[in-house]
Amino acid sequence: MGSGRRIYLAGPDVFLSQAVEIGAVKKALCRDFGFTGLYPFDNEVDLASPTASREIYTANVAMIRDADCGIFNLTPFRGPSADVGTVFELGMCVALGKPVFAYSNVATDLIDRLREAGGLSRDPASDVWRDAEGMSVENFGNADNLMIDAALAEQGRRVYRADVPYIERFTALSGFKACLDEARAFFAAAGSRAA
Amino acid sequence: MGSGRRIYLAGPDVFLSQAVEIGAVKKALCRDFGFTGLYPFDNEVDLASPTASREIYTANVAMIRDADCGIFNLTPFRGPSADVGTVFELGMCVALGKPVFAYSNVATDLIDRLREAGGLSRDPASDVWRDAEGMSVENFGNADNLMIDAALAEQGRRVYRADVPYIERFTALSGFKACLDEARAFFAAAGSRAA
Repeated sequence: MGSGRRIYLAGPDVFLSQAVEIGAVKKALCRDFGFTGLYPFDNEVDLASPTASREIYTANVAMIRDADCGIFNLTPFRGPSADVGTVFELGMCVALGKPVFAYSNVATDLIDRLREAGGLSRDPASDVWRDAEGMSVENFGNADNLMIDAALAEQGRRVYRADVPYIERFTALSGFKACLDEARAFFAAAGSRAA
Repeated sequence: MGSGRRIYLAGPDVFLSQAVEIGAVKKALCRDFGFTGLYPFDNEVDLASPTASREIYTANVAMIRDADCGIFNLTPFRGPSADVGTVFELGMCVALGKPVFAYSNVATDLIDRLREAGGLSRDPASDVWRDAEGMSVENFGNADNLMIDAALAEQGRRVYRADVPYIERFTALSGFKACLDEARAFFAAAGSRAA
């Protein structure tokens, strides 16, 4: 059973044309698992306001601070890595000592995505991989930049990765449900330890 | 005059083939401004070790917690946005209440970079811009995702933006020096207030 704990729901979902709708679906799934979902404020301000950025930021940061944990959609967004807004929020949660759960709807390693993009080469002397611009590529079997994967690992978790049809990668919710399962098990175990 | 305060030096600089050298140059510049630079640990572990990710992460997080502030290189990396590792660390610093200074060697707004990439369109009904995949694009005059720009704004600062020759965008240090200037002024003012 859940506990009414609050989960911050981070991800590029807020950029979908159905952003509000998917937020409602995610919040309903949270309720099914006994949680309260806190969905970013991005679509609830007057976008023409000169203070829109600050209003959204302040509301999102308040929700993050209020949350008991976060679920992060780390599906690659506009490039080989996750959405930077989502990753900023992940860093905040980790610094605040909150449990974090994460998923990606693209199962490959970061290095595999860069290999697909082309231009990857290995320096045989140093055994370092470099992209087409000569920037090194971490080869640690991670879903994304090591700071992301290791933040999860430090909490005893991993980025939940499973492929979905490409066209559904920003809307599929199987990974999100897997994270809700993880979160429920985590708080159940935490409750047992406290009892 | 400086104060020996410690600055965490975040950026995709760690991926350059001259990563160690540019770190040394940045640390020397910090000394010139009276600071101590803390450069990420990425290039000081055995990359073949199965625990390399965790070792780098743990060392970097310890440096972040130890730092008095951070300077973040937010130059777009492998796409229209900043390096996600750097942004994770920015989120951590902000959550920990540390002053953050940031620069980008590409002066455009995020939306301009997406426009250059092609496929940007505006929904006349909602006045929302969308990329080629239909994901909305923030049109707030920001350098990157609003969480990044607004985090700086909350501290009374902006991402320092100035174009450099494209080939030098990961090595040029003019923006870094501008941030050192900002940091020196910030701590000088903080010192006056404390006195």
